[in-house]
Amino acid sequence: MAWEIDARTKIIALVGDPIEHSLTPRIQNAALKRLGLNVRNIAFRVPKGCLKDAIKGLKAAGVLGVMVTIPHKEDAFRLADERDQFAQLMGSANLLVFKEGKTIAYSTDGYAASRSLKEVGIELKGKRVAIVGTGGAGRVLAFQFALEGAAEILLFNRTLERAKKLEAELKRKLKFTSVKALVPCPLSLVTELRRCDLLVNATSVGMHPNEGETPVPSEALHEGLVVFDIVYNPVQTRLLKEAKRVGCKTVDGVPMLVYTNEKALELCLGVAVTTDLVKLMLKVCYDSLKRH
Amino acid sequence: MAWEIDARTKIIALVGDPIEHSLTPRIQNAALKRLGLNVRNIAFRVPKGCLKDAIKGLKAAGVLGVMVTIPHKEDAFRLADERDQFAQLMGSANLLVFKEGKTIAYSTDGYAASRSLKEVGIELKGKRVAIVGTGGAGRVLAFQFALEGAAEILLFNRTLERAKKLEAELKRKLKFTSVKALVPCPLSLVTELRRCDLLVNATSVGMHPNEGETPVPSEALHEGLVVFDIVYNPVQTRLLKEAKRVGCKTVDGVPMLVYTNEKALELCLGVAVTTDLVKLMLKVCYDSLKRH
Repeated sequence: MAWEIDARTKIIALVGDPIEHSLTPRIQNAALKRLGLNVRNIAFRVPKGCLKDAIKGLKAAGVLGVMVTIPHKEDAFRLADERDQFAQLMGSANLLVFKEGKTIAYSTDGYAASRSLKEVGIELKGKRVAIVGTGGAGRVLAFQFALEGAAEILLFNRTLERAKKLEAELKRKLKFTSVKALVPCPLSLVTELRRCDLLVNATSVGMHPNEGETPVPSEALHEGLVVFDIVYNPVQTRLLKEAKRVGCKTVDGVPMLVYTNEKALELCLGVAVTTDLVKLMLKVCYDSLKRH
Repeated sequence: MAWEIDARTKIIALVGDPIEHSLTPRIQNAALKRLGLNVRNIAFRVPKGCLKDAIKGLKAAGVLGVMVTIPHKEDAFRLADERDQFAQLMGSANLLVFKEGKTIAYSTDGYAASRSLKEVGIELKGKRVAIVGTGGAGRVLAFQFALEGAAEILLFNRTLERAKKLEAELKRKLKFTSVKALVPCPLSLVTELRRCDLLVNATSVGMHPNEGETPVPSEALHEGLVVFDIVYNPVQTRLLKEAKRVGCKTVDGVPMLVYTNEKALELCLGVAVTTDLVKLMLKVCYDSLKRH
């Protein structure tokens, strides 16, 4: 029997702007097909300011849930009736699930990043972490790592004000005091990274079409460092290549994307996503990126 | 290359309640696949009263157009910014197309019924037509046939008031005077159908699971009559079987459904639907109904 769309097919939506390069529909539809569920993931380009109408309408149309990406994560949080704990902490959400007439907001990016690290044996507890970039992604990672017991968090951002704001927020909301805001100049990176266990790139530096760029000079990398890059296009960024060259363990951005999708499937459908299914989603994602 | 959903996939929506038995997604997705277009038809169950939110949201989400069925055809008409001529006449619409920020309403059921007849060589001009059932479908057909120059239209309805209302409407809006409202008792059907060229069943009598029923007793059928049944499940209703037995030319309800879909593709996508594509859609529809 073909896996055909019919009038009973249910939808998990993805909304953002831009959205046309997202790999989420491919990843999720491969998983849904494997699960044999009559559900599809469909991406909708929704311009800034139109989220409220879109969500109200998708809810009225019986959509199961809506994955939310840039520029709507804060608006999604505000539109919800209920929010999970991490979303409350962030004031933003990347998933809305419709249940019994209610809209429930989840923030799963922190979970997805943390699980990406755990799957390769890296626990955050007691670690000294450097995060480059304190925008939306960097902020989520900083909170997640602080909650998981990181020993110290260094926040590097070109606009120091922004890093300082996040530093203050971590101190205020989590009583997490081992945090410091810094400008990512070569000297400070070389000096500070020496005593770090984990370096995370939470900027878009190195992303296609700027593959030649890197957020951290190679001199600052050392063998004792685990390097995690949230960029997944290309999978092997210049940062990850240079990190491997000096012997670092590296984690690319694909697993984080896949675990975001895994969580969305779990919360929208109430299904448990097996290890095999995660492997399938990882494969679809890596294969799609190779095709580019 | 597989015909895979990705983040660029566009949607034509179908909304109604109930909707889960509709064949439209299958018919249209088969056509879209053949056309090689990255578009899918998806059905959404939208309860009465929720159309406004759903349409606003689907529009905000960049959906190309929305096919509308029971119970939303009147609301769809009201929600539009512009309406085609037939929709204006009907005060109802079965298709909303989003173009340059505007919502344009179309009523294509009349076209679909008329084309179903034309494709088997039946022109309405000068014909004496009996329509059984003066609900939404019967009303559309009566207007369409009157516009196409039918010589006379007999309107049969159990609730005579409703038939009389339609009779008055045809007289008022189209100055069409050769119209008469009647109760479909066996005697009047036998007497009146004698001088008719075309009989249309526009009720749901004979539809699954009531295959044993027929809206017109077999004694009223005669060889000179073309019999058109808008019911398509089953394809061969008791009415059509009995009509064939006395030598009538018959037209089942599948082509009308297919031409509704053809028109929606044309208006949402701006593509011309070829004869081959219509054949494919007819085949998908007949095959799906056989499977039931």
